[in-house]
Amino acid sequence: MAQGTLHIVGVGPGDPELLTVRAVKILQAAKVVAHFCRHDKKGHARTIADPYITPGTQDVRLAYPFTIEVSVEDPAYQRDIQGFYDACAEQLAESLAQGQDVVLLCEGEPFLYGSAMYLFDRLKGRFDTDVVPGIAAMNGCWSQAQVPMTHGDDVLCVLPATLPEAELAHWLGQTDAAVVMKIGRNMPKVRRALEQSGRLPDAHYVERGTQAGSFTQPFEKCGDTAPYFSLVLVPGRKGVR
Amino acid sequence: MAQGTLHIVGVGPGDPELLTVRAVKILQAAKVVAHFCRHDKKGHARTIADPYITPGTQDVRLAYPFTIEVSVEDPAYQRDIQGFYDACAEQLAESLAQGQDVVLLCEGEPFLYGSAMYLFDRLKGRFDTDVVPGIAAMNGCWSQAQVPMTHGDDVLCVLPATLPEAELAHWLGQTDAAVVMKIGRNMPKVRRALEQSGRLPDAHYVERGTQAGSFTQPFEKCGDTAPYFSLVLVPGRKGVR
Repeated sequence: MAQGTLHIVGVGPGDPELLTVRAVKILQAAKVVAHFCRHDKKGHARTIADPYITPGTQDVRLAYPFTIEVSVEDPAYQRDIQGFYDACAEQLAESLAQGQDVVLLCEGEPFLYGSAMYLFDRLKGRFDTDVVPGIAAMNGCWSQAQVPMTHGDDVLCVLPATLPEAELAHWLGQTDAAVVMKIGRNMPKVRRALEQSGRLPDAHYVERGTQAGSFTQPFEKCGDTAPYFSLVLVPGRKGVR
Repeated sequence: MAQGTLHIVGVGPGDPELLTVRAVKILQAAKVVAHFCRHDKKGHARTIADPYITPGTQDVRLAYPFTIEVSVEDPAYQRDIQGFYDACAEQLAESLAQGQDVVLLCEGEPFLYGSAMYLFDRLKGRFDTDVVPGIAAMNGCWSQAQVPMTHGDDVLCVLPATLPEAELAHWLGQTDAAVVMKIGRNMPKVRRALEQSGRLPDAHYVERGTQAGSFTQPFEKCGDTAPYFSLVLVPGRKGVR
């Protein structure tokens, strides 16, 4: 019996109109759609994909074993999350081995900090895989905020806000353009890193980009709290006169 | 009379199925579609958008005043290209002022090294603007090559191959993940920078990603020539065990 194909599909940053034509075709034809979620909630990627999923499609919920943010430095977290990804991969492998194609949804762009990579890493080689790119969160945010990022030979650094403060400041100081991802509880640290690197006056804050309730403002006007879906944009230095 | 709106629409890296639903809707309703091109050729972005443009749409060709690659360091280039963008902006402004909406196509993602930014910079404030993100060339390439780029808190640097060799090597040496864009005639320099930084064994070369004739291979197997539509991917260092 022929095995199924694993389709990893990026669903973009929030607006369902930011899925690609190819993603929509795959979703409309899908029999089995898997997505990561909290145990008590529908996953964000699944919500974005809603308009394109046909009745009768089998939903596979991959529910994280955590309900609050746990530090990725915690050894218990690393052990639990690896075990979780192993179990998810085996769950999808069962369907794939039976000849069933499986679509795994991923917020934004799958291969840029996407959870789907952890299942891809475990299942590639064993099954045919197909990866459909999505609009990354940062692309959706800088388009909505209308902040052009890189002109000419500007360098762009994409920096997780979870990095230590000194590292963040180091990168921000030397790059032309930067995106700081996954702000959340790291807001005060990100502010200090922007100050130390002299980039604070140029930084834009974007919250829930392309989603309901989205807004953008100069970072300098922000307080010390931010939701998970927020990021900082520092445009490049070679904007045309 | 109400002015028109300038829609800047990213058309993705080559495959027409990688346009977003929103881009397709805007193209199908467009009366005036502008694109950059060589004087003797249809532009690449216009070719990608072809399936979605309805008969009777007005095509505005913005033909570059150069037919060969000119160094961006050349003062004559800078003077000519700025004058060219000024003239393009005024051409679109004329339609916009008459109440005509204008769609400006852009390969890949407009605000990541896109030519459309230079017209956006000139027309924002004077007219309403709307920016539709596209799948960036690098996203299309790493999806097609099936190379996951950033896990955990990996840093990603996006580096134009036009940077000096020492700068390229410096960035490649310190970042976790990297994309080197716009390879073209810079292939030998990029190879030396990868060697100096110790990243050569991990580098993937992708040519014409998502376009006809695309292929990918380890960079080590490449020769010294590459077309304009080529890039290098160096995946991050924190891939999960």
